[in-house]
Amino acid sequence: MATDWFTLRWSDEGVVMLDQRLLPGQELYLTLGSVEEIARAIEDLVVRGAPAIGCAAAMGIARAAVVSEAKQVADLVDDLEAASERLARTRPTAVNLFWALERMRESWRGLADGAGAGVAELRAGLVAEARRILDQDVETCRAIGAAGLELVPDGSRILTHCNAGALATGGYGTALGVVRAATEAGRSVTVLADETRPFLQGARLTAWELDRDGIPVTVITDNMPAWLMQCGEVDLVMVGADRIAANGDVANKIGTYGLAVLAKEHGIPFYVAAPLSTIDFATANGDAIPIEERGRREVAEIGARTLVPEGVPVRHPAFDVTPARLVTAIVTERGLARPPTVASVRALAPSD
Amino acid sequence: MATDWFTLRWSDEGVVMLDQRLLPGQELYLTLGSVEEIARAIEDLVVRGAPAIGCAAAMGIARAAVVSEAKQVADLVDDLEAASERLARTRPTAVNLFWALERMRESWRGLADGAGAGVAELRAGLVAEARRILDQDVETCRAIGAAGLELVPDGSRILTHCNAGALATGGYGTALGVVRAATEAGRSVTVLADETRPFLQGARLTAWELDRDGIPVTVITDNMPAWLMQCGEVDLVMVGADRIAANGDVANKIGTYGLAVLAKEHGIPFYVAAPLSTIDFATANGDAIPIEERGRREVAEIGARTLVPEGVPVRHPAFDVTPARLVTAIVTERGLARPPTVASVRALAPSD
Repeated sequence: MATDWFTLRWSDEGVVMLDQRLLPGQELYLTLGSVEEIARAIEDLVVRGAPAIGCAAAMGIARAAVVSEAKQVADLVDDLEAASERLARTRPTAVNLFWALERMRESWRGLADGAGAGVAELRAGLVAEARRILDQDVETCRAIGAAGLELVPDGSRILTHCNAGALATGGYGTALGVVRAATEAGRSVTVLADETRPFLQGARLTAWELDRDGIPVTVITDNMPAWLMQCGEVDLVMVGADRIAANGDVANKIGTYGLAVLAKEHGIPFYVAAPLSTIDFATANGDAIPIEERGRREVAEIGARTLVPEGVPVRHPAFDVTPARLVTAIVTERGLARPPTVASVRALAPSD
Repeated sequence: MATDWFTLRWSDEGVVMLDQRLLPGQELYLTLGSVEEIARAIEDLVVRGAPAIGCAAAMGIARAAVVSEAKQVADLVDDLEAASERLARTRPTAVNLFWALERMRESWRGLADGAGAGVAELRAGLVAEARRILDQDVETCRAIGAAGLELVPDGSRILTHCNAGALATGGYGTALGVVRAATEAGRSVTVLADETRPFLQGARLTAWELDRDGIPVTVITDNMPAWLMQCGEVDLVMVGADRIAANGDVANKIGTYGLAVLAKEHGIPFYVAAPLSTIDFATANGDAIPIEERGRREVAEIGARTLVPEGVPVRHPAFDVTPARLVTAIVTERGLARPPTVASVRALAPSD
């Protein structure tokens, strides 16, 4: 794993985030002190990727606690609720966002109601909880990597979509965590990265972080996978997820569903790697997952270049849903759901 | 059909071409006097699209005749052969290029050997033949449109890929010729245009020419079609072709094969519109069609923006092959091959 860069970190001055909009051209770290700054960073894709969004949101709550001028616990809790409401409005699809906000809420309730903590203890407790969420996210990714190892034989040519890497998590990555685990296990694997329009997470982010870590990666446009599968150049597909329903349906970056159909047509296994915090047991199936529609500009412009004639509309669904029947296995920190079904997904849940 | 712009035209000063690299931002017409300039314009995608490449190559031979300083017919023919050899090296996949060069060769042989024409008559004859190829290309496109009309019911939402429009032909278009014919027949149709990375023919060219002609078009990225098909927003797929083998296998812009697989999975008809000059009866099936691999830059850069980290390789197959079994019908100026088979494709050929 890389040691000379990171996705996000806690500091006394604020949440420090690598600005992913500027990669690969520029490595700039922003320090965001206020909840509003952190919320906008999530909305504007400074930080993205479901687990990383969860970590950023948790740190947003911790920052709310730190900057609040409340003298009474009740007033501080009001500020935390307002911060939580603001952060929940940033992005609708990734369930880790809501999971992290809920975990922070449980933390402050436990401290305030359960332990009778004062304002200072609440602040310290929430900062500690946010940092713990980040640390646990990295541990979880390593466990996902270990669980996925058996799916990646030596010599595998792995197609991935978007960025489900260190940059999408606290570190190490989910889909790319499995790639890193295979590499660390001494297996020679290579990655084909879809560029992933419109935001180009594959070309800009997956290529950047794998190259930084010395893992061979080749970038292709989003319309090439079918042909490369047909030419026998893809051994398996490994992607991340933004939300997984209780039946194993997977919401992930737009284009994932098409890859799953193509993988099935070519007899290629299709794997989804994600932490349990991405599984939304309250959502029965993919039909109930809200799909974010983003604005025109990300599709119609790249840098200063206008790609689409003025006045011509675009569509911009940011995610799609892959039905469980097209997923060979879901890889989590608690093992595999292979194939994903209501029962195999439920079996991964911590005892409840 | 649009009247205030054109793809390419003959003039006494040279071949006048709309520079398609600059659309939609800028409408610039280049006048290319020499064979080398015309060959480079084809290589550099100033003009693209199989039928338009054929027209440009024919005009390249005509320009070679005009600018040649030969005083004897034999010397002029040497210059024409050299020009033909240069133009044949521009792009390997589109068969219309070779078809047009062969038709020009037949023309000068007929004039020189058959009719005993002198140098001046040869020049005039070749200019007339090149202009005839352009005019016939537009007529052919209109006939393709008429033949395809029965495939496009009122209200159709048509997905297309790359640009198989007026800009890819002498005018009117093949796939977009069918769209224009449906519109002219009073049918209300809308087009979803894949942006078609890396050169963005869909976002830049298809959107531009349909918008110019008042036909509703919406641009999507290349990873959205599967999801929009799944959401029931696509009624049919209509694309062009760069070369069609004798058995109906279709080479077309990279991404076409994937769309055909997705269309089949969703029960959506998949149509290919192309002139007979795109059918290569000498090629038994798609395996024998050469697929052009283009350079890194078109994938790794857009304008001044670098999308892929330096040192990370890219792949750039410019075309793929769709097997005939995934094609619902091929639409030509002589009617449909539905479904395409060796027999149905052969039946379209002029009596031989």
